[in-house]
Amino acid sequence: MRVRFITSNEGKYVEVREALEGAGHELIWKKHPYPEVQTASLDEVVEEGLAWLGQRLPGDEPFIIEDSGLFVPELRDFPGVFSAYVYKTIGNAGMLKLMEGRSSRAARFESRIGFWSREKGRHIFGGTCRGTISPSARGSSGFGYDPIFMPEGESRTFAEMVKTEKNAHSHRGRAAARFIRFLG
Amino acid sequence: MRVRFITSNEGKYVEVREALEGAGHELIWKKHPYPEVQTASLDEVVEEGLAWLGQRLPGDEPFIIEDSGLFVPELRDFPGVFSAYVYKTIGNAGMLKLMEGRSSRAARFESRIGFWSREKGRHIFGGTCRGTISPSARGSSGFGYDPIFMPEGESRTFAEMVKTEKNAHSHRGRAAARFIRFLG
Repeated sequence: MRVRFITSNEGKYVEVREALEGAGHELIWKKHPYPEVQTASLDEVVEEGLAWLGQRLPGDEPFIIEDSGLFVPELRDFPGVFSAYVYKTIGNAGMLKLMEGRSSRAARFESRIGFWSREKGRHIFGGTCRGTISPSARGSSGFGYDPIFMPEGESRTFAEMVKTEKNAHSHRGRAAARFIRFLG
Repeated sequence: MRVRFITSNEGKYVEVREALEGAGHELIWKKHPYPEVQTASLDEVVEEGLAWLGQRLPGDEPFIIEDSGLFVPELRDFPGVFSAYVYKTIGNAGMLKLMEGRSSRAARFESRIGFWSREKGRHIFGGTCRGTISPSARGSSGFGYDPIFMPEGESRTFAEMVKTEKNAHSHRGRAAARFIRFLG
């Protein structure tokens, strides 16, 4: 199937394309801004985004959107749904600073892929990746918080892995795998 | 005039009521959730909130909403429009941590009061208060970031002042003063 991915984040596009192409689907990158509600839930952001774009996006081809976040229980799930904003402001250096002296460095990445099609309606697919915040930023592949996140059972950060390795573990890779199973 | 204030934050209500009552107006506290868009601008949050509530809020009486944020230039204006969320998660301790070793502790509070009335339409009133992030949290009056914010020319934090003193300086007090002039 040919699907459009509405995102301003090239890194996300490249990752999801990798997963979809491996399953024989085609992913087209398209930028189109849509409002993101201030809420504590990724599901709500994606649901409202799908509803909004479903009414306004030109063209009739199916599309996906994705929202994800890094949740740190020791920081009451900060930065959570506001991960993109927090990354742009205080960044990984700020996150490492906030983790100083914390008793637990546990963290999880969450992803939600929202799918819209005229025939199949709206669907949301989730993926989670548990891990820890690394003591320092390491690696240069990927984007965002990748240099400070080590998935469970790994001593490397996401930014020290190649795309296919990251996809095998990652929240976004897992959400993409669920979406691919749905496409059949 | 009798005006409703739609907010879940009692501290905000008490402050704005103090200012309005001093000018002979009556402020009624009402809780009614409304969506807040994820955006870098307080104006957009307030504009969309007014539009949304204007269509849905029961009753015909005029109402106000208020949004405010703490902006720290050294942190690329973090926490900004996400101040409420950041306060609930990393709090003042997190903010003080992020300020460690920063060359400038300059900060500003911004407020926007949005007014809706059937006859007068929608209007937004702004107020700014410049100051610095204090070296440690001090005082117990007010709410939110008050214990770590010292307005310009003051050695006390907002949380070390009584309500009328804070209102004379504060972003919200200034926005309220503009709103009161508009009411006439």
